[in-house]
Amino acid sequence: MESCKVVENIYLLVIVTLISVLQNVFFAQKVERECKNRNMSTSAFERVSCANRNCMDAYPTFLAVMWCAGVCLSQAPAAFAGIIYLLVRQKYFIGYLGQSSQSTPGYLFGKRIISFLSLMCIVGVFNYLLWRYYGSDYKEYVETITNAASALLLLP
Amino acid sequence: MESCKVVENIYLLVIVTLISVLQNVFFAQKVERECKNRNMSTSAFERVSCANRNCMDAYPTFLAVMWCAGVCLSQAPAAFAGIIYLLVRQKYFIGYLGQSSQSTPGYLFGKRIISFLSLMCIVGVFNYLLWRYYGSDYKEYVETITNAASALLLLP
Amino acid sequence: MESCKVVENIYLLVIVTLISVLQNVFFAQKVERECKNRNMSTSAFERVSCANRNCMDAYPTFLAVMWCAGVCLSQAPAAFAGIIYLLVRQKYFIGYLGQSSQSTPGYLFGKRIISFLSLMCIVGVFNYLLWRYYGSDYKEYVETITNAASALLLLP
Repeated sequence: MESCKVVENIYLLVIVTLISVLQNVFFAQKVERECKNRNMSTSAFERVSCANRNCMDAYPTFLAVMWCAGVCLSQAPAAFAGIIYLLVRQKYFIGYLGQSSQSTPGYLFGKRIISFLSLMCIVGVFNYLLWRYYGSDYKEYVETITNAASALLLLP
Repeated sequence: MESCKVVENIYLLVIVTLISVLQNVFFAQKVERECKNRNMSTSAFERVSCANRNCMDAYPTFLAVMWCAGVCLSQAPAAFAGIIYLLVRQKYFIGYLGQSSQSTPGYLFGKRIISFLSLMCIVGVFNYLLWRYYGSDYKEYVETITNAASALLLLP
Repeated sequence: MESCKVVENIYLLVIVTLISVLQNVFFAQKVERECKNRNMSTSAFERVSCANRNCMDAYPTFLAVMWCAGVCLSQAPAAFAGIIYLLVRQKYFIGYLGQSSQSTPGYLFGKRIISFLSLMCIVGVFNYLLWRYYGSDYKEYVETITNAASALLLLP
């Protein structure tokens, strides 16, 4: 089946995308719930709304870079980095809603994961150009290194 | 033509994406126009700006899930659900701009369509895994069922 | 290598996407820096935050239309238009942060480029339909015309 061959190379990315969509809906429902209780505490609504906005601002960037990395190089480490990103995002969102005495985390989060995925894209394009102009294909070596390097994202 | 074969599997999705882009531009022009008349009525500007923001917040989620559903399973029902989503969004936007005495609709909209598209993704990935590990391919049955189920989205 | 054939048709788009991600991070860091200096000047923070928001609102639309145009028709002019869009966006962002006495630019920017990319999508889908129903393929002519037309985007 030709169609199944397409799915073969992206199914992990699709799963991560689905999980991220679920998370988006979870965030949106938090906003919706606070919006209805708006009269009680404006501060809580502002916090959850701001946390949701920051997450949503970064979302297209994340999706684009994850899919590019997955398609250009290798889907497994890209999906793995995606999962880690979603965990970081969850932690960021929860941290934002914390005690009002605490300082809120900054605007950016998950910089390391976005950098890793960008690097994967660059390596993928570079590998293609090497293959095109020199005929040499280091894809297997690169994939092995990428798989190993993705474990580094687990470091705190 | 190899390139035409790629387009064959996605052209309906491309058309829906184009319509959604047109709609985005329409929303943005509404905001732009109100922004220039800002001095007259702050409330109207805030309403249209908020409606546009809510639509834009949900846009990447919608695009991601529609394309995943279309690529993993079948493009026709995914594009159909996309069209319905755009109609719901238009109604939501117009509803947001209504009488200031009316209560505004909530933050979320189109939940049923997003759920349907997510379900399509899950079924697509599941079908691929079945094909990979058991060699059985139920794609045709699944597509027929999906086509029929997408008609349910028309229910109010 | 099958995987390299996939990359062949999209590598320019991937490069433009990467540059746009870098630009997003640059914008976000500007916001982050102003956010920390918030007490000094609320106006500067509001300006940079608003500029970033407007750019981020338009970002998914841009990505979607660039990728559709690149996949449906031809990647070189789509990537070229993407680069021009990023330059326009940079200019818009810088212009937004200018003297507070100046009036800010509007909500929309890069309309011409988005229109050009949308037109490329329409031509690509139309060309596919012609090929499907009449068997005639004008892709080469269309690509030549598109390449020439993309130079028109350089006009101020």
